[in-house]
Amino acid sequence: MTATAQSIAYDDLQVGQTANQSHVVSEADIQMFAAVSGDNNPVHLDADFAAASRFKERIAHGMFTGALISAAIACKLPGPGSVYLGQQLNFTRPVKLGDTLDVQLEVLEKLPKNQVRIRTRVLNQHNKAVVDGEALVLAPDSSQTVQMPPLPRFTRQDS
Amino acid sequence: MTATAQSIAYDDLQVGQTANQSHVVSEADIQMFAAVSGDNNPVHLDADFAAASRFKERIAHGMFTGALISAAIACKLPGPGSVYLGQQLNFTRPVKLGDTLDVQLEVLEKLPKNQVRIRTRVLNQHNKAVVDGEALVLAPDSSQTVQMPPLPRFTRQDS
Repeated sequence: MTATAQSIAYDDLQVGQTANQSHVVSEADIQMFAAVSGDNNPVHLDADFAAASRFKERIAHGMFTGALISAAIACKLPGPGSVYLGQQLNFTRPVKLGDTLDVQLEVLEKLPKNQVRIRTRVLNQHNKAVVDGEALVLAPDSSQTVQMPPLPRFTRQDS
Repeated sequence: MTATAQSIAYDDLQVGQTANQSHVVSEADIQMFAAVSGDNNPVHLDADFAAASRFKERIAHGMFTGALISAAIACKLPGPGSVYLGQQLNFTRPVKLGDTLDVQLEVLEKLPKNQVRIRTRVLNQHNKAVVDGEALVLAPDSSQTVQMPPLPRFTRQDS
């Protein structure tokens, strides 16, 4: 699937402006995040181990939610052409397999030199925050419509 | 490959204690991080687009480096049984394909209730910081040796 994405120029960003992106956490997400990060802790990958842990069941890697936040910034608000300068993440609740996450972005402040502070909050299906924090982003000078390459597709080799 | 990892208990952590983890950024890393995050921006995936960008060539997703930091914390310092409470990331330089990243962790401060502040810095092969920041982690009560499941393996389906 090829599609376009449109960025929002710095001048067009408004304090209070929002965007969001929903995602259901799948088995493939957890497996692939383990592979790409190198974090193979059994609390993410081993159901028996996780059942005996403080979490009682397998949890997603905290930084997987960070990855979803970064994608929402890069694809939606401000979108393509943004430069990621910083991110604060507070991991407030565990994310479980099958959770529906809603990544919520809100422009908090426009700073000089095209910099923008964005609140980055992620709620689960119970409307509880799993991550709260904020991003610092360099917004593009002008709005651009960008052809987005198809998402690479991967399959498990060992399952 | 199955292996064990040993965690460091809160009481055994020392201010100034360090750990590090090296990683060479591969094509597969960038493709897989695009897939798992959903961020298919052409600056990461399209060489021609990236050549015309401010970066002149394709760059890794900033949060990929965040993923490497989270893995080093979860696997090495303090290791398995840690709970990730927070992470600040300042993205100071772009990461290019083929860069050798050195994730460097250093215990900054031991706080009450098993909490630990850890400096999280990532240098490239030119000894320049690409990310600086710090993590807040809940360290385990006691050291444990954990059987780490094999890392899941994936192959591109569409290449």
